Amino acid sequence: MTIARSPLAPQGFPDLPAIQGVAPRVARARYKTWDRCDLTFIELTPGTAVAGVTTQSKCPSPEVEWCRAALALGQARALVVNAGNSNAFTGNRGRAAVEAIAARVAGHLGCQPSDVFVASTGVIGVPLPIDKAEAGLDAAFAAPACDWEDAAATIMTTDTFPKAVLTRAVIGEKTVNLVGIVKGSGMIAPDMATMLGFIFTDAAIEPAFLQKTLSAANRTSFSCITVDSDTSTSDTVLAFATGHAGNAPLASFDDAGADAFQAALGDMCLQLAHLVVRDGEGASKFIEIQVEGAVSDESAHRIALSVANSPLVKTAIAGEDANWGRVVMAVGKAGEPAERDRLAIRFGPTQVARGGLAVDGYDEAPVTAHLKGQEIEVGVDLGLGSGRATVWTCDLTHGYISINADYRS
Amino acid sequence: MTIARSPLAPQGFPDLPAIQGVAPRVARARYKTWDRCDLTFIELTPGTAVAGVTTQSKCPSPEVEWCRAALALGQARALVVNAGNSNAFTGNRGRAAVEAIAARVAGHLGCQPSDVFVASTGVIGVPLPIDKAEAGLDAAFAAPACDWEDAAATIMTTDTFPKAVLTRAVIGEKTVNLVGIVKGSGMIAPDMATMLGFIFTDAAIEPAFLQKTLSAANRTSFSCITVDSDTSTSDTVLAFATGHAGNAPLASFDDAGADAFQAALGDMCLQLAHLVVRDGEGASKFIEIQVEGAVSDESAHRIALSVANSPLVKTAIAGEDANWGRVVMAVGKAGEPAERDRLAIRFGPTQVARGGLAVDGYDEAPVTAHLKGQEIEVGVDLGLGSGRATVWTCDLTHGYISINADYRS
Repeated sequence: MTIARSPLAPQGFPDLPAIQGVAPRVARARYKTWDRCDLTFIELTPGTAVAGVTTQSKCPSPEVEWCRAALALGQARALVVNAGNSNAFTGNRGRAAVEAIAARVAGHLGCQPSDVFVASTGVIGVPLPIDKAEAGLDAAFAAPACDWEDAAATIMTTDTFPKAVLTRAVIGEKTVNLVGIVKGSGMIAPDMATMLGFIFTDAAIEPAFLQKTLSAANRTSFSCITVDSDTSTSDTVLAFATGHAGNAPLASFDDAGADAFQAALGDMCLQLAHLVVRDGEGASKFIEIQVEGAVSDESAHRIALSVANSPLVKTAIAGEDANWGRVVMAVGKAGEPAERDRLAIRFGPTQVARGGLAVDGYDEAPVTAHLKGQEIEVGVDLGLGSGRATVWTCDLTHGYISINADYRS
Repeated sequence: MTIARSPLAPQGFPDLPAIQGVAPRVARARYKTWDRCDLTFIELTPGTAVAGVTTQSKCPSPEVEWCRAALALGQARALVVNAGNSNAFTGNRGRAAVEAIAARVAGHLGCQPSDVFVASTGVIGVPLPIDKAEAGLDAAFAAPACDWEDAAATIMTTDTFPKAVLTRAVIGEKTVNLVGIVKGSGMIAPDMATMLGFIFTDAAIEPAFLQKTLSAANRTSFSCITVDSDTSTSDTVLAFATGHAGNAPLASFDDAGADAFQAALGDMCLQLAHLVVRDGEGASKFIEIQVEGAVSDESAHRIALSVANSPLVKTAIAGEDANWGRVVMAVGKAGEPAERDRLAIRFGPTQVARGGLAVDGYDEAPVTAHLKGQEIEVGVDLGLGSGRATVWTCDLTHGYISINADYRS
């Protein structure tokens, strides 16, 4: 089944610089019966620092378990990404496949297996075939370095466009580059890093501090998006810092340039997260849910997710129907403090309900006009406190049903 | 938009006896631009006991607030149900409409307004027009008594078939009848009474004990179904007992026949709950999720709901795709204790995964055959303890999208 490029996709692919110390290559492992590259091998210069966040699923893939163990060491020499088979829920055979991949790469680079990070995405429950992985790796070792667009396309599954972002920060006298690629369009929910995302920078950063900045960036980006409320067994975001920019290594927020790096990384993660929503399965609208006036930021976040995950809200927006009653419903079911008669709701800039009922003389025309656009904003004010949160999602359309009822992901 | 009768609907409407002391009538209030009865008025004999459970939404309708206050008194003389307008989130005007309805009925019957129970279902945010309600009531007062099928049809909104159930119990020497009617097909989630349901019995029961039996029945029926994880602002289930059967009034489980009545009421609630799932918006499959081996019954219930509410599980079943990896995913995201390598999953009688991986020599043919049926069973064994739970849901199809993206409910 061919899915058309998402109508919410950005124009084209961004111009991205090479990141010193990072060499991507792609190959055909043929994990599925397709004729496309599906194995990505990215070699990293010795001394590259690594940080990561992984799924909160209680049934994670062996890749996730492998990465968690390797992250404790803070060093990386390579990343391997398999597309078409997530290798999740495959028992000992799944673990053996990850170990075989790490061993193959370690042999090729002369490094430790624990320096090799592995991520896989695709169908659950089918052990990753070791012979295909090894043949694919050997082909990748022999391949010329590719560009970021090839790498971003090779990690895709049901994605309809390759996703990448560039940000920069100035650390001391040095300008550092951050390039990120991401894949994901379904099984996206905010229990943490909610897709495969890989960020590469030439900045020099201590692993522990890189982890601190990535965790902070994750909280306001990948943890604030949802496509379908489903949480993958394989979600992984990794950040690699080669140090080739030559800045004085960052080790704490007291270091000059650390705030700038955090800002660039946060911007990177937010842009990557938005790209995932823009490729949400079947999405025709990009929706921002802004909640304020809650009793706490955490409460606001839970209410925002209740709205963002409501099938009735998402289908109403798909139908360009100013059915704000469904927003009331979703606020009411969140289980968080709310008082009906203090609640205010808006679509775009137009207030539709306030004080427990529709705004007097409410004119639906500007709301309908807003809903006909592709960028939808829903505002909820609880009127109780100063807690606020923003989450992003997409609408729920026939496209989601077609993709997921017909395609074994 | 005309929606075809659900393929999961039962054949025809059951034969139901009149309940002594209960007189239903219907009329056209024309809450929407339709030419159908949409107001149900049910007169109850003096001395009728009442019990109820209502939504857990933090933004309930004024009808729900009215019923909660009236339930404290334990007596009922009438029930009014409005279809086409839920009157929720309408501020003082909504409250005034409920008060006007109760006053009109009280004047007609010569009872207290607090003896009158009111429920409304339909669009949120539009105050129920008092003039239409009053004219509809006057028409109902003058109408002949109708049968249960008329009443069950008149409370419908997006429902595709009228829903009613008969059960019986023997109390002492007396056989008592219970007739229940229910409406609901979307905005169905298990935070409690999850639709409008009304149960009438000629049994004599003390109000406090009727409440106890209804609350118990609710926990294993209405609280165990979900169509779309959305919780209505108006959910209400009321049980009325006229006492005309002449049994010695039941006041506790020590009374002869109390267990039989509880069993009949429990059976009634479960059958009504299943009818709601069978009319789930767009449903093509009736799905039972059985979870066992969890650390507690509560944990099993939450895991079962995580599976039942997963859009990816529901679309896979819609597509008759034996994609058990999505069940693993949904178990993993529930946030409850689970160990990947102890997990076992079956579809119908066929075990597909055990001990953290696919069953050796797994043959997909019988699973695919099971999924082609209309009655689907998914079994999950956590392998951790003795906690168990069962929930019921339906699949997620194009029909759900069509209904909810195109129709302002």
